This record gives sequence, structure tokens and C-alpha cells, in this order.
Amino acid sequence: MSEDLIERIQSEVQFNEQGLVPAIAQQHDTGEVLMMAWMNADAIHETIEKQQVCYWSRSRNALWRKGETSGNTQKLMELRIDCDGDTLLLRVDQTGPACHTNRPNCFFKAVRGGKIEIISTPIA
Amino acid sequence: MSEDLIERIQSEVQFNEQGLVPAIAQQHDTGEVLMMAWMNADAIHETIEKQQVCYWSRSRNALWRKGETSGNTQKLMELRIDCDGDTLLLRVDQTGPACHTNRPNCFFKAVRGGKIEIISTPIA
Repeated sequence: MSEDLIERIQSEVQFNEQGLVPAIAQQHDTGEVLMMAWMNADAIHETIEKQQVCYWSRSRNALWRKGETSGNTQKLMELRIDCDGDTLLLRVDQTGPACHTNRPNCFFKAVRGGKIEIISTPIA
Repeated sequence: MSEDLIERIQSEVQFNEQGLVPAIAQQHDTGEVLMMAWMNADAIHETIEKQQVCYWSRSRNALWRKGETSGNTQKLMELRIDCDGDTLLLRVDQTGPACHTNRPNCFFKAVRGGKIEIISTPIA
């Protein structure tokens, strides 16, 4: 990927006051929404360059190479930018569980039948 | 829906300093990611109560009843909360295009073949 393309992508993005943009990760073939995290310009740069998803960790204030320690990486299949440039959609191929709770995705608390239900279990 | 359930949902959510939480809307049957917008406690209350999605407009600083003027409403099929409580996933049934550009979804700028490509057209 050329530096030029990366610069064009970054210039399409409306970063917030903290220099961040929300990024939704979606499994490319099933459509499953895996997680939402944040990226800064450097995270976008690295993600495009390596085609492996890298976020910005707001708690650690550092680049967060998804799966670097767990092995649960996200291979980038396609990056999409929304109409206003203020949200990214990462079409990925997820290895292992996406969630730090070891569940396939982070959205496992569902409002069903008048209560909040846990709808998935951690992968052993 | 009981007030009690709505209070429990609100208490599971980690609102940011502006009292907002990002909400991803996904077409419930196809998995298509439609858009991302923001909710406050009142928007969650109304969405659960009416089962029609209501966001918080950061530009207008007011409740944003999705589709109120355009007719492109989002019927709530299921609300999910993520592991950290800081993102919502709205499983919806979208009427008409979700995007204000009249496209089916907001994520129509895709990085493909070394350039940013527009991958959908407005619905006539």
C-alpha cells in the first residue's frame, strides 16, 4: 500500500478532539459484528500497511495490535469509511474469539423477554 | 416495557463525559451494518419504550427520531450491550435507505485496489 493512499484515507476521516475515530469490526463472510474500538491516524496507517487490525487503546494510551498477545488477530479484508467520515467499518477475518471474555463477539448482553440475557459463552 | 428494565439497561451502559454511548445499527436478518450514531439515556428510554430507534443528534443537540421526517425508520428487533457497556448494537428492521445520502447504508466508501471507491448508489 502506498503512503499516498494512506494519506488519502486519513484525510477522508473526521477525527474527534482526541484524534480518534470509532471503528466497527465485522466478520467479512458472516456479517457478525465483533466489536467496536478506536483508531488514530497511526493505527489506520499500520492497519492498512500490514493488513492486520491495529487500534488505539484509550486506557493504555498506545497502539493496540489486536491479538498480539492472545493470538486472536483480525486480518483486514476491507476498510470502509462512512458518509460523514466519522466512523470506520473494518471487514475482517477474525482468528479465535474477538472479545476479551473469550466470547466470539463483544455484544453478548441482549435485552430479551423483559430482561438482560447473556447470549453466548466463553470458548474453552 | 417496564421502567425497571429501562433503568437496568441504562445502568449497564458506560456513558462518556457527554452522557453518550455509540450505537451500531445492524439489519437483523442480513447482518448489514447500516450506520453508527449516538444515544443518551433518554434516547435509550424512548427506543426501548417505542421499539423504534431514537438517537441523540450531537449537531442538533436533541433527540433524533430516526426516520421521523424521511420515513426511513428503524424498528428495534433487539438491543445488545457489549462487554464493557460502552457500545450498543441495535438489531433493527430498516425501512428504506439508512443513509442520509439515500444509500442503503452509510459505509459506501471502500478501500479497494489502491483507491477509495464508492460502492453503492443512492436509491431513486
